[in-house]
Amino acid sequence: MGFNIQYWHNHLKFRHPFTISKGTKTHQPSLLVTLNFAGIPGYGEAPAISYYDITVEQMIADIQRKKNFLEKFSFTHPDRYWHYLHHLLPGNPFLVAALDIAAWDIYGKLKSRPLFQLWDTTMATAPLTDYTIGIDSVEKMLAKMEERPWPVYKIKLGTKEDMVVMEQLRKHSNAVFRVDANAGWTLAEALDILPQLQQLGVELVEQPLAKDNWEGMKILYERSPLPLIADESCVGEEDVKKCLNHFHGINIKLTKCSGITPALRMITEARQLGLKVMLGCMNESTVGTAAIVHLAPQADYLDADGPLLLEEDIAEGLRYDFGKVTTTEAPGLGINVVNSEW
Amino acid sequence: MGFNIQYWHNHLKFRHPFTISKGTKTHQPSLLVTLNFAGIPGYGEAPAISYYDITVEQMIADIQRKKNFLEKFSFTHPDRYWHYLHHLLPGNPFLVAALDIAAWDIYGKLKSRPLFQLWDTTMATAPLTDYTIGIDSVEKMLAKMEERPWPVYKIKLGTKEDMVVMEQLRKHSNAVFRVDANAGWTLAEALDILPQLQQLGVELVEQPLAKDNWEGMKILYERSPLPLIADESCVGEEDVKKCLNHFHGINIKLTKCSGITPALRMITEARQLGLKVMLGCMNESTVGTAAIVHLAPQADYLDADGPLLLEEDIAEGLRYDFGKVTTTEAPGLGINVVNSEW
Repeated sequence: MGFNIQYWHNHLKFRHPFTISKGTKTHQPSLLVTLNFAGIPGYGEAPAISYYDITVEQMIADIQRKKNFLEKFSFTHPDRYWHYLHHLLPGNPFLVAALDIAAWDIYGKLKSRPLFQLWDTTMATAPLTDYTIGIDSVEKMLAKMEERPWPVYKIKLGTKEDMVVMEQLRKHSNAVFRVDANAGWTLAEALDILPQLQQLGVELVEQPLAKDNWEGMKILYERSPLPLIADESCVGEEDVKKCLNHFHGINIKLTKCSGITPALRMITEARQLGLKVMLGCMNESTVGTAAIVHLAPQADYLDADGPLLLEEDIAEGLRYDFGKVTTTEAPGLGINVVNSEW
Repeated sequence: MGFNIQYWHNHLKFRHPFTISKGTKTHQPSLLVTLNFAGIPGYGEAPAISYYDITVEQMIADIQRKKNFLEKFSFTHPDRYWHYLHHLLPGNPFLVAALDIAAWDIYGKLKSRPLFQLWDTTMATAPLTDYTIGIDSVEKMLAKMEERPWPVYKIKLGTKEDMVVMEQLRKHSNAVFRVDANAGWTLAEALDILPQLQQLGVELVEQPLAKDNWEGMKILYERSPLPLIADESCVGEEDVKKCLNHFHGINIKLTKCSGITPALRMITEARQLGLKVMLGCMNESTVGTAAIVHLAPQADYLDADGPLLLEEDIAEGLRYDFGKVTTTEAPGLGINVVNSEW
């Protein structure tokens, strides 16, 4: 039996304009996709992230062009559907991710089990998730932290004021701090700043250097007092091995790696190589974030604050308790779509 | 070539009297042991923990009684010495631990490598350590937290006031909280309190029930929204497997499991079983704590605040930066004993 596909183009409004080292945005364009299999709906999401150069329009065009093929698939297991999608949509990992997530949602519903149980895990062991503070004036960053008291903050850095900012934030909060430089530093800057971040008790640093600066990362890796986690440098499965001896861990995001199916393989490979595993969301709603939270018990670090940054969500089914995030016990993703722009 | 043994009976004074569910103490009796091998000193420590019923006097009596055997050992690798000790001192795991740590210190010095490097790890990936707040009035607990701003606190619970205490502490701090009940709850109490702790964003709970209450733990494990870590229920290697499906992880302490050598095996076994690994110190100085910190990159959670709780330490060689703890790069444990009561 095949699928029936529907899709919606959403514009998720942020609570606050969101700034990282690459720019500022007020809304997040996002594709919501529904696969329907024998009356069972499966949901998936793909936010359009500008620096990966994939728009929602392009994802929709790909769906329309390949609709017949996408729907005419004899579904048994998400693994097989992913391989099919991977070959059908080679240039669009974000769309593959959304469809793969939807297929897993259906698979969990067919098995009457939440996804985390299918993978023999329990939500109890999901790590606390951080809450992201974008680049802004120190005053506004502090105001955002006060607005949402939280035990683990991820601070976006990558300007000339980085240490001034961090010292001020540390004076006002003793939460755990993670730092995401989004490739904003040179090697010399990183070598200077990392020991200072250690003194402030920073837990980890994401993507300190440009994504292709493997030579610089090798030097930094050997001298870093803090765990360095690859984000832009680790997009998909083919990148995991490259990170060995250049990073201490990898940040797996479902959109960039093209779904749950390859993410599960990346987790296994990272563990075999002794790399730490971080799971991260893009700016996305509860739909895409729920898929990450189901995987969270398999991770060392979790960055699943997508829904918290939004003014309005399109689904419900995640619970956030001061750092602890959990899914429902309902089958599949365990979510209900409540509000989409159709 | 054999060892030359020396030992000292220390009384480590706490900064503040220290209370857990089992009682209050102002000083920690602790054995410092030195093995000397071909002019190379190796240091080890064993604090006397009353609820394990081993006194420093008993450890010293054991050393004196077995001194010839302990010294006449042809040393090649700490593994072999541990097996020898294990059979020579079957009733005294704390003393075995101290001697095993000293042998590892020597082994690292012979190889000119810090221990963490011998185990192919880097200090960068050591998790943040928590800082322990003993049972006290809420005012005094808050004062202790203000005295040492820290990103991860371990809160000792086990009284009728537990939730009142936790809610007050949460109002005043957004640090990560861990809870150690030290076997202080009944199953009914734990079932009631765990969901409340989830709402306060607690990261994990240590030893909720009595150490032998495996039946209760099985029920609690299935319903707990938070990771449950075995401490008193997981003393040595023989206990790791028992914790499966009763706890989400184990707290390995070198003294109770009898040293670094068995701890390494327990870490391997826990990983194979899918159990989380916490490494914990007893109330001990930088000597015993350094051994734990060298193992820390292999752990998910770290509780290595022993030296921070002391008024005076007997060694130097650990650095604490707002949660991040690191050893030196010097060989072996990388410590210098600076002040012992000889």
